[in-house]
Amino acid sequence: MRAATYLGAGRIVVTELGDDPPGAGQVQIEPAYTGICGTDLHIFHGDMDGRVAPGAVIGHETAGRVVAVGPEVTGWRPGDAVTVMPLRACGHCPACVAGHGHVCHRLVFLGIDAPGALQERWTVPAGLLVRLPDELPLDVAALVEPTAVAVHDVFRAGVAPGDRVLVVGGGPIGLLIAVVARIVGADVRITEPDPYRVELARNLGFAVVRADHDDPAAMVEAWTGGAGVAVAFEASGAAAGIATAIEALAVRGRLCLVAIHATPREVNLHRFFWRELTLVGARLYARADFERAVELVAGGMIPAGALVSAIEPLQRVRRAFDMLAAGGVMKVLVDCRHDAAAAGDA
Amino acid sequence: MRAATYLGAGRIVVTELGDDPPGAGQVQIEPAYTGICGTDLHIFHGDMDGRVAPGAVIGHETAGRVVAVGPEVTGWRPGDAVTVMPLRACGHCPACVAGHGHVCHRLVFLGIDAPGALQERWTVPAGLLVRLPDELPLDVAALVEPTAVAVHDVFRAGVAPGDRVLVVGGGPIGLLIAVVARIVGADVRITEPDPYRVELARNLGFAVVRADHDDPAAMVEAWTGGAGVAVAFEASGAAAGIATAIEALAVRGRLCLVAIHATPREVNLHRFFWRELTLVGARLYARADFERAVELVAGGMIPAGALVSAIEPLQRVRRAFDMLAAGGVMKVLVDCRHDAAAAGDA
Repeated sequence: MRAATYLGAGRIVVTELGDDPPGAGQVQIEPAYTGICGTDLHIFHGDMDGRVAPGAVIGHETAGRVVAVGPEVTGWRPGDAVTVMPLRACGHCPACVAGHGHVCHRLVFLGIDAPGALQERWTVPAGLLVRLPDELPLDVAALVEPTAVAVHDVFRAGVAPGDRVLVVGGGPIGLLIAVVARIVGADVRITEPDPYRVELARNLGFAVVRADHDDPAAMVEAWTGGAGVAVAFEASGAAAGIATAIEALAVRGRLCLVAIHATPREVNLHRFFWRELTLVGARLYARADFERAVELVAGGMIPAGALVSAIEPLQRVRRAFDMLAAGGVMKVLVDCRHDAAAAGDA
Repeated sequence: MRAATYLGAGRIVVTELGDDPPGAGQVQIEPAYTGICGTDLHIFHGDMDGRVAPGAVIGHETAGRVVAVGPEVTGWRPGDAVTVMPLRACGHCPACVAGHGHVCHRLVFLGIDAPGALQERWTVPAGLLVRLPDELPLDVAALVEPTAVAVHDVFRAGVAPGDRVLVVGGGPIGLLIAVVARIVGADVRITEPDPYRVELARNLGFAVVRADHDDPAAMVEAWTGGAGVAVAFEASGAAAGIATAIEALAVRGRLCLVAIHATPREVNLHRFFWRELTLVGARLYARADFERAVELVAGGMIPAGALVSAIEPLQRVRRAFDMLAAGGVMKVLVDCRHDAAAAGDA
């Protein structure tokens, strides 16, 4: 069985691993397509070596089919189309007891803290499976996980129909947030510096401000008649993104913090006081977000064709990471199927 | 008619002003007691000269009695005991239209942007009066305005019965927040460096951590069994207060930002993401907060005796500011009554 294995900063290779048959309460799936996200890229670059050791199999955005069902598992059988909610909560910490297992103090994230989906077969707890409609193409279904992130973010921000919403950062998550917020009924605009991403967002029907040489604040001022937006999403990870989002908000506006800011940022707290703003942190998703994401993806509400820039076979996984690192792409999927090599070379 | 007049940084004197009889829609009151707050002290120190010009009469925490009623005013008559909600909203800006007039884009704050209550007679729009029970002593009633701030803050933070709450900063507003949160049913602790304020808070029954040489994080860890608090109030204005509050919060905890941070602060945004925290800015009060504050003060729920450190007559207003600047006091009131001079010298 082949698996993409992280070997240290900048090194990921396909290795042969032994089979890992499902134990009690487990199910083995064949991931068909596994997406690579910004966190995977951080791991690839060695930025998360404190958490991910060489030899790890990463990847957590997947869709595939059940191939084997372990003892004491009911409701699943080989051939079922599934995606995986890659979170294992402890069930006992204060976050779990409060009903927020997705931010469990001892959360195990499959693909980071435990083996992930960039392999031909993946054994996971049965409770993490989420059923997919049988007719949904699995490359499209690989977008369920990032879509669940966007659903969670839009829910946490309390986006309401008619709200004016600014999304700061037009990468995959920013774009998915924009799409989901528009589905909810919001009037959405995006600010983003990268010309490729600007063009892609415009093709999806969004008004986009070039963050590098246009003035987002002036655009918001004109768009909202001086009021500001109800909701801003910080999905850029840049220090300037925080300032842009805060400046854009109307009185009582909500800033939803989606991106990771690893170092402390200078924040204009006076503006939070003066306009009674709210900052809401949003991380991952609950099961309900995942199931809603399946509905949106299956319902054709997520523009998969525009979002998936390339599909690479497992043996060319390194190329998938290099494409993502080079930019000029949105989402890159890895085809993990056993026969994908031939398909990829054809 | 005598008034305390700001003449520039460090200078406040009592001057004789002409009478200002009430026009249409206005009421003239005799402020009995007017409290001095941190903002008044900033004005006194010249920090707000861009907004408050020499010659201004400041003060906005007052209780008194109606002395004259202008044309087209109904419902008020001389002798009525009143306090004043010192906010004049424009009624037309996006904040007003959205129903948040207390953060009006063109807010006129009486005592800052317009003449205030440190004078023997004060003419204000009738719509800003809030009725006081006739039997409520007016020196106690002077605490209604800061109590309304605390009521607003506790409401904005969504404090619920049983919530563990940390108040960072034990000045007048921090203490009033602690008192109101306790009334709501929260389990409240305070962190504060000043020994005088620590002692005062302890005498009011609060557990207090000396922010300077104890470790608030260790206290919160032990107190909450590692979970963290549901709500933290930043009422210190110090950069360290922000960090203390963020570190104290449980998963999904709410940080209510009460104090003014005039310069941007370094904020651990990763913690907001990781624990899905919320930051809520809270400024001033709505009318409902003011009326609730009257109920709390009139009901004896606010420890006025402990909070009011001194009462100085109007002619010694400078001394009131000096006491506040020197520290070692909590709230200082100015007795604005015409016969207070004699009383104060007695």
